[in-house]
Amino acid sequence: MKVHIVGIGLIGGSFALGLRKAFPGVEISGSDASEAHLLEAEELKIIDRSANLEEVKEADVVIIAVPVDVAKKVAVEVLDQVVNDTLVFDAGSTKAGLCETVADHPNRRNFLAAHPIAGTEFSGPGAAIEDLFRNKTNIICEVEKTAFKLQERALEIFQKLGMRIRYMDPKAHDRHIAYVSHLSHISSFMLGKTVLQKEQNEKDIFDLAGSGFASTVRLAKSSPAMWTPIFQQNKENILETLEEYINNLSRFKDLIEKDDFQEVFLEMERTNHIKTILNGIN
Amino acid sequence: MKVHIVGIGLIGGSFALGLRKAFPGVEISGSDASEAHLLEAEELKIIDRSANLEEVKEADVVIIAVPVDVAKKVAVEVLDQVVNDTLVFDAGSTKAGLCETVADHPNRRNFLAAHPIAGTEFSGPGAAIEDLFRNKTNIICEVEKTAFKLQERALEIFQKLGMRIRYMDPKAHDRHIAYVSHLSHISSFMLGKTVLQKEQNEKDIFDLAGSGFASTVRLAKSSPAMWTPIFQQNKENILETLEEYINNLSRFKDLIEKDDFQEVFLEMERTNHIKTILNGIN
Repeated sequence: MKVHIVGIGLIGGSFALGLRKAFPGVEISGSDASEAHLLEAEELKIIDRSANLEEVKEADVVIIAVPVDVAKKVAVEVLDQVVNDTLVFDAGSTKAGLCETVADHPNRRNFLAAHPIAGTEFSGPGAAIEDLFRNKTNIICEVEKTAFKLQERALEIFQKLGMRIRYMDPKAHDRHIAYVSHLSHISSFMLGKTVLQKEQNEKDIFDLAGSGFASTVRLAKSSPAMWTPIFQQNKENILETLEEYINNLSRFKDLIEKDDFQEVFLEMERTNHIKTILNGIN
Repeated sequence: MKVHIVGIGLIGGSFALGLRKAFPGVEISGSDASEAHLLEAEELKIIDRSANLEEVKEADVVIIAVPVDVAKKVAVEVLDQVVNDTLVFDAGSTKAGLCETVADHPNRRNFLAAHPIAGTEFSGPGAAIEDLFRNKTNIICEVEKTAFKLQERALEIFQKLGMRIRYMDPKAHDRHIAYVSHLSHISSFMLGKTVLQKEQNEKDIFDLAGSGFASTVRLAKSSPAMWTPIFQQNKENILETLEEYINNLSRFKDLIEKDDFQEVFLEMERTNHIKTILNGIN
């Protein structure tokens, strides 16, 4: 099997490492906007060789793992060149815009829109992890628009990498993921900002930080180049989630302000049941 | 050494387990408002036996590890009974109110105000961890008000448990800890609430949640009985941090609303440097 990966970062690199283990003999070429990342990926033996985008004509599988604004352009460029039996899938965190972009492409049936819910706060090929996708959910959108035998090939790959599949409408995907992923990143970035601002006047504040703070602020290490276009593409849903989040915080603040600590207690107790929900997530 | 621990939960239980390892032969008695927790702590061999508060007359060390509202009352009750060479210390997340409460107690010099920055989102004796305090910061307030030889005993204990000591004024402690601990808990609880509210209408939303969401919302599993009195006692500082956090979120929302994604990028990039700060925290 010949695979070409566009974007050899955390996600593209993890696909490469996972495929190597799951499909011995796989040949993996890669392209990336960063020459340094390409070199690093070759040195780390994540890819066999770098190649330009024309390579996709020879590939059985093309994986697009670039920031979501670039992904739209790359998807069209790849679909313009692929042959009949090449599977092309992406891994981006927004789906509605991309599905719309490729909707009328003559090679739409070569494309599968995917979003593996997997990652870390780190980026680049050095952050790639062989088992990143094991036991993770992979959301597939508009599966009916992909050629049947290419669906099969994709499912075989996802299954061998250990993923659990969920099928969703792209708009529902973007709405849901705004709550369980995009909002978390904003809450974390703004928490980090709030504490950094305070530190300018009160030194040594981070010396007092424990694992709880580290956990809530972990996502503030994430890549702005990756996240800015996600917020742009999912603007309407994110504005809605942010408004609800801010309202909930303001309400909690009001309760503290007017000394209604019985209700403060109840607010927390009602949210506590998230314990049972989170048990399946690592 | 005879130790009595008031409150055999996550923190009190972890002190017991750590002391057992660091001081072979230590005798540990415990008291707790929950009969079930006491029984569990005995069964788990966390304490040697349960005892009532009068026990503190026989103790070399008394550890107060109860919710911060109860801690004020317990501290006075304990100090009322202790003899000259008994060390009493607490482990609560607020310090100004407690230090004020005991300020004029005739046995003030038996008391040391401490706050080990350690814990998990779990509670009860079953959540106790022997090594919980290793490499963690322990903030000591108003050390000069504790008898010199009892300071020495406390430092020996903290050192053997592997803690790093920081000395702080109780008011500065409460102000700083509002930022790096209390705010994280509120941001996490309200994030959990926002997503739970959404889930009432859109089912299966948590099926899409990944490790990023789990990390930011982890603290929403924390005990409301522990956190409500903390928010009450540190009300003024928490209102200040919450206002700044809400302002930062609102500003970020405005940037998205008016499509200023260059500034969205810069906001995240400026906060990214929290990476280097967090490296020392686990």
